[in-house]
Amino acid sequence: MNDTITAISTAPGAGAIAIIRLSGENSFAIADKIFVAASKSKKLSEQKTSTLHFGTIRSGKGIIDEVLVSVFKAPHSYTGENSIEISCHGSIFIQNKIMQLLIESGARTANPGEFTQRAFLNGKMDLSQAEAVADLIASSSSASHKVALQQMRGGFTSDLQQLREQLLIFISLIELELDFSEEEVEFADRSQLTNLIHKIKEHIEQLIQSFQYGNVIKNGVPVAIIGAPNVGKSTLLNILLNEDKAIVSNIAGTTRDAIEDTISINGILFRFIDTAGIRKTTDTIENLGIDRTHKIIDKAEIILFLMDASRGSFKTKINDLIAKYPTKKIIPIVNKSDLLGRINPIRVVAELPIVYISAKLKEGISGLEKVLLSTANTSNNKGADTIITNTRHFELLKKSEIALIRVKQGLATAISGDFLAQDIREVLNYIGEITGEITDDEILGSIFSGFCIGK
Amino acid sequence: MNDTITAISTAPGAGAIAIIRLSGENSFAIADKIFVAASKSKKLSEQKTSTLHFGTIRSGKGIIDEVLVSVFKAPHSYTGENSIEISCHGSIFIQNKIMQLLIESGARTANPGEFTQRAFLNGKMDLSQAEAVADLIASSSSASHKVALQQMRGGFTSDLQQLREQLLIFISLIELELDFSEEEVEFADRSQLTNLIHKIKEHIEQLIQSFQYGNVIKNGVPVAIIGAPNVGKSTLLNILLNEDKAIVSNIAGTTRDAIEDTISINGILFRFIDTAGIRKTTDTIENLGIDRTHKIIDKAEIILFLMDASRGSFKTKINDLIAKYPTKKIIPIVNKSDLLGRINPIRVVAELPIVYISAKLKEGISGLEKVLLSTANTSNNKGADTIITNTRHFELLKKSEIALIRVKQGLATAISGDFLAQDIREVLNYIGEITGEITDDEILGSIFSGFCIGK
Repeated sequence: MNDTITAISTAPGAGAIAIIRLSGENSFAIADKIFVAASKSKKLSEQKTSTLHFGTIRSGKGIIDEVLVSVFKAPHSYTGENSIEISCHGSIFIQNKIMQLLIESGARTANPGEFTQRAFLNGKMDLSQAEAVADLIASSSSASHKVALQQMRGGFTSDLQQLREQLLIFISLIELELDFSEEEVEFADRSQLTNLIHKIKEHIEQLIQSFQYGNVIKNGVPVAIIGAPNVGKSTLLNILLNEDKAIVSNIAGTTRDAIEDTISINGILFRFIDTAGIRKTTDTIENLGIDRTHKIIDKAEIILFLMDASRGSFKTKINDLIAKYPTKKIIPIVNKSDLLGRINPIRVVAELPIVYISAKLKEGISGLEKVLLSTANTSNNKGADTIITNTRHFELLKKSEIALIRVKQGLATAISGDFLAQDIREVLNYIGEITGEITDDEILGSIFSGFCIGK
Repeated sequence: MNDTITAISTAPGAGAIAIIRLSGENSFAIADKIFVAASKSKKLSEQKTSTLHFGTIRSGKGIIDEVLVSVFKAPHSYTGENSIEISCHGSIFIQNKIMQLLIESGARTANPGEFTQRAFLNGKMDLSQAEAVADLIASSSSASHKVALQQMRGGFTSDLQQLREQLLIFISLIELELDFSEEEVEFADRSQLTNLIHKIKEHIEQLIQSFQYGNVIKNGVPVAIIGAPNVGKSTLLNILLNEDKAIVSNIAGTTRDAIEDTISINGILFRFIDTAGIRKTTDTIENLGIDRTHKIIDKAEIILFLMDASRGSFKTKINDLIAKYPTKKIIPIVNKSDLLGRINPIRVVAELPIVYISAKLKEGISGLEKVLLSTANTSNNKGADTIITNTRHFELLKKSEIALIRVKQGLATAISGDFLAQDIREVLNYIGEITGEITDDEILGSIFSGFCIGK
């Protein structure tokens, strides 16, 4: 923590501007070794916080670039430490050269997420907020952006922290009782404690429930595109994604691997998965693909069931599929419906309305998108104010839920104070691990290694 | 020029941080519509220049991001106008969203290079300096970076501008003479003018000469890799470039297209061009490739002539090549020399020393790189303090050279003042076009359209 770290913080590659960050006690001393302000006598170390300074970066041999340097004095910086941001011309050569000079002057290359890790360790944010920074940068839809930003700004942990503090008071009282165990006193009011435990359990259960939706927001609503070979599944995927993702041919069995990608429709992220057409075949590779299709259907929330307009008996096929996957949301689609002279109107012929499209003519697609949105929206995003998207948080909440059930049972059966205290401690630890009040280096390491460098 | 422009200025894609720029009279008013400072009452328009402000970007519906805003007040900015730089989290979603909000608030998307164009139009830099900004961002070697930076910092134009100003005095005197033409006075001292013309001509000729080297710095020393089929040319290219650029197989005639790429060795940029092996063949496509090889050799400065260790008579082959291309710098290389048990030592068997390498074992390569560097260095980079790399400048210098010769001849033959003035005007115009003192919209348009957006 005592050394000064540096990294290129803007996206990799050449641009008009690039930003190189420096954070640590010696930031100003290091930067002053290579920076010469336009008004020569100026030293960065003597400047006020939140000020900008124009000048040149120099190496022994000459000028490397004209730059703008931002000065942030501890604790008024992202990391809470002395920090510098160098805004230079965005050539890859200049970026690398300045990094090299900073390292020669005493800085060290930052590890992924190390700036944010320092912000956490210096108390500028809790752990869930730090984790949200990575989610925020990766967010690609309006919904995922909103959830990440809310979490970064304190989101769901402020409530949890408050509840945890109330529980801390109770445990100190119960532990006090243990000191006076021979006297059978009861400092901690058991009915108040029962109420608090109930409240915490309810809150945590709500967060756990929100995870299913949160996961969908982060990774997209999984939508499997299925159907017989050569009904146009890959063509439909390409149209929905607006790019030539899957290889399309009129040879049945072209798609073998499951091809997937996400796209945001009206702010909702969908993860479309093209599958191998299901049929009996002796082609080994194709059969492996068909096996995989069944697994994809299991994981999908929505099934786009594509049928060929020229191969009728839609009703039977749809009803067969509903019978086979009663829990899935199925959208039956008749493709190549230009052959029927019927595009877009949604007609009910089976238990479900059918969407008519022509993937080839790109017609009926906006109608299909509307059906997708209404199908996804009717799902599980209701009422959740705060949403969990992080698997680590989800698992810790699940664990604390189990411990809370034990606390509740213990209170109901009036078990001894030391057993009760042990279960409550467990709850406190799990919640503390979410907010980072309780951490170990291994957990921190695995969290921040997933960050991009420069954040 | 009166509207306010905006663009993402960092490299495209997601990063830890992205910078969105805003420049124009209304920059502060526009930014104040969407930015709320952490200390709520703060308005950007009321802040001092070169200060940083933390806060949030908001749209009607809520918070988009926590950002840091830099304030630059006219004329203390890159463009010379009121400017803002928003440093936001680098997700693509956030970048696009903030751009959208700025545009809804009254800004317009900047054209490529428009910030630099405004800097030029507001007198913050001359035209050749503005052009150097694009070169600086694109520069990928130490040498090209140095030349671009020097040019951006005033480089060769300050001398030219001084000489032009001296010439301007003379032309005003000559034009004054024309007003008094009936009186045959001579305000402009002809011998002084002759001296000045001589000085300008010498200076311009030096710049013209530097262009050949400047072009090499910018685009790389062209090096053709030639040799019989299957001697390992593509393998050598891949090793020199440090990547699998060319497809390698042991089937003679694998390479058909000329494959090229640049790499910087010790700060000197080399452009290596792999060629189709030259042999008699009936394969039409391969023959097209061989035709192309001859053209590449014509353009190359250095020829790497690759021979197979197992197919001797090096001396004859080398001497044949020297006879065929007497003006080229040829480096004869014996590849697969592990078969001879002889790697790296450079031996003279012909008129030129031979470099022994094993491309397969990656041995002898650093020796080859040394030979390449000394061969390139002995060329035409001597004595040039200021170097021209821009074709537009080169062409204008060539034109002014021709006009200068006419002025010189005119002075020698004592032609009439109005003819003399006309030729001098021409010189002034050409030089003025380099520095941007004389421009038209079409020239500016074509210069700045080559820039990246956001600069």
